[in-house]
Amino acid sequence: MNEQTSGQIDEGGAPSVSDQEVGKQVRLGVDKPLRLDCGVELANYSVAYQSYGELNADKTNAILVCHALSGDQFVSGINPVTGKEGWWDLVIGPGKLIDTNRFYVICPNILGGCMGTIGPKEINPETGQPWGLDFPVITVSDMVRVQALLLDHLGIKKLFCALGGSMGGMQVLEWAAAYPERVFAAVPIATAPHHSAQNIAFHETGRQAIMADPDWHSGNYLNHDSRPHRGLAIARMIAHITYLSEPALQNKFGRRLQDRDAISFGFDADFQVESYLRHQGSTFVDRFDANSYLYITRAMDYFDLAERHGGGVLAEAFRGVDTRFCVISFTSDWLYQTAESRAIVKALNAVAANVSFAEIESDKGHDAFLLEEPEFWKVLSGFIEGAAERYGLVGT
Amino acid sequence: MNEQTSGQIDEGGAPSVSDQEVGKQVRLGVDKPLRLDCGVELANYSVAYQSYGELNADKTNAILVCHALSGDQFVSGINPVTGKEGWWDLVIGPGKLIDTNRFYVICPNILGGCMGTIGPKEINPETGQPWGLDFPVITVSDMVRVQALLLDHLGIKKLFCALGGSMGGMQVLEWAAAYPERVFAAVPIATAPHHSAQNIAFHETGRQAIMADPDWHSGNYLNHDSRPHRGLAIARMIAHITYLSEPALQNKFGRRLQDRDAISFGFDADFQVESYLRHQGSTFVDRFDANSYLYITRAMDYFDLAERHGGGVLAEAFRGVDTRFCVISFTSDWLYQTAESRAIVKALNAVAANVSFAEIESDKGHDAFLLEEPEFWKVLSGFIEGAAERYGLVGT
Repeated sequence: MNEQTSGQIDEGGAPSVSDQEVGKQVRLGVDKPLRLDCGVELANYSVAYQSYGELNADKTNAILVCHALSGDQFVSGINPVTGKEGWWDLVIGPGKLIDTNRFYVICPNILGGCMGTIGPKEINPETGQPWGLDFPVITVSDMVRVQALLLDHLGIKKLFCALGGSMGGMQVLEWAAAYPERVFAAVPIATAPHHSAQNIAFHETGRQAIMADPDWHSGNYLNHDSRPHRGLAIARMIAHITYLSEPALQNKFGRRLQDRDAISFGFDADFQVESYLRHQGSTFVDRFDANSYLYITRAMDYFDLAERHGGGVLAEAFRGVDTRFCVISFTSDWLYQTAESRAIVKALNAVAANVSFAEIESDKGHDAFLLEEPEFWKVLSGFIEGAAERYGLVGT
Repeated sequence: MNEQTSGQIDEGGAPSVSDQEVGKQVRLGVDKPLRLDCGVELANYSVAYQSYGELNADKTNAILVCHALSGDQFVSGINPVTGKEGWWDLVIGPGKLIDTNRFYVICPNILGGCMGTIGPKEINPETGQPWGLDFPVITVSDMVRVQALLLDHLGIKKLFCALGGSMGGMQVLEWAAAYPERVFAAVPIATAPHHSAQNIAFHETGRQAIMADPDWHSGNYLNHDSRPHRGLAIARMIAHITYLSEPALQNKFGRRLQDRDAISFGFDADFQVESYLRHQGSTFVDRFDANSYLYITRAMDYFDLAERHGGGVLAEAFRGVDTRFCVISFTSDWLYQTAESRAIVKALNAVAANVSFAEIESDKGHDAFLLEEPEFWKVLSGFIEGAAERYGLVGT
């Protein structure tokens, strides 16, 4: 199967993003609906994904990349929607650390997303209207279940590797706990086994900002031809602060002024950091759906691997799992601190799982996993090479 | 002078808070207007304050308490507006750590505030309308200048002690740098010599939330009989997260659910931490003015003691200062970290100032200074007792 023919490009899907823009797209749940954690059944729904490289004859060289809250399926090359490089283009591509001349890399847009996979902005077939808040509330488990069904659809029984950072890392952990026989290697990066009270607090504040925007119209904004851009921008600004470390903000901006020599004694963006944050907020709203933001943050808040798979004990979630893990954290990540990764490692050790752990020295904060971090790349590359050898994947 | 007769209760002032509610109130700038840092002159403006205990005959036993962003003049006893205990009632009162049987404690509502001191919700005499965004943008220096004029008015030449936490600590630092001859002892608590990029970022996000609320009406909401309650509540929620440490949130709430046994698969406050934050937001709007929030956060962002008084070098801001300092920080305060307090101490040491420093072990975060912290109280009490002895204030 090669890139040109691997995906079924079907009719339907996102109302405002064309098929070409979302890349490959399939419809799942046609024969058998998907029962979500909340009890609702989803039938005949779209899943968009992008793939890079070729699946080998044995279908053993697949790497699943799980994207984060604001990510999408365009990990490598140019993102057709934004016109910018994919979010992990530094790491994934021909001849790169994750070499698409050698591996088949697949990244699906997550369930609840807004880039071609079913989510609150898609059309509810029962009403002919956008789902809005009628869309069922989803979980990280639901997201992963959809990914597993996509792999079934593509005939991929087992992944060589599942990897991702932040919420992508949560999906990786869920994959290993729910489908251990389908994941040879797992790399959860800059993530946590559950959302902390502080994590929930930041998300809740962002959600409240969206829902406080009158243009949100109780989630029904698409029918009002409006978008809660102000609320979503605030939510993005809040979240963005948590993605950067205090030293990173200090180094990048400090108290430097924006295009002026002195403070203005007003409420314009006097400081560079203000201008930067406003820009982050205002550009985000062009590419992201506010209701998707609500649903995905909710799924993250609900994420609790120990509760879900271990009866409240994290180690039990991994009992009997043969997957080999490489857990990676960053020293200055205060959103998902190293202590969270250590809790994962401790739980894996408690059930004698195969795990390596690296805490990367970095001042870039949570977003370090998306940036140039040679030490991180060395660890990632070393693990993938070793695992590939173990898995019998001979290098090109 | 005793509590009953110390303040001149004048006419005018806040339109929606009665004189009784704001405590004592004077009008300043009647003979000579105050020139603010922005260049605007303020004439005949109200300053509200509260005092506790009696000023001695020599007027040497005055302690100035500087309140923080969301604080007010009611440090002790019952706050007449909220009906709750004053924000530092644990520490200040008859027989308490700061014993009002012995000291005359005075706390003015800050310039730009909304509890009886002139601020954006007061009436602009030139228009007969609330100032709104026509109110001049103020600085921490302006706030302190008004406090100095209030003390002039009350005939207090020199403070025994100035103390305060958070923005209150910034005012204390400004006092020592601008009026060293008027402050015998200074206690800046849980504060910083300037606002960091991250501090500015959080404030800017809160301001954007207020200004994004259509009920803000470009700052002119009082004339529209509306209040930007939603925006202000979001701003408060954002800020409140920064006041608590991650461990404090974890201990207090963890992932515990609010009045339910299982997640609701919806956007209600499933988690206790969500319910708590929503409550913090919704109660704040009843007692605080949204424009005041804009002005005060802006003053904090502008605060840079080194720039203001030291030509960019913090130590120079303190050169020749005879005030004795007690700098206090808390281990889990991530808003104004111990490193910020250390920078103050280092600068004071560089000019051979009289300084003691204590980092208090606490998991309560920034708000620790408002809470029961016996170790903190011990340090504070020891410093005040020692300083009082040095100053010739004999205990009762």
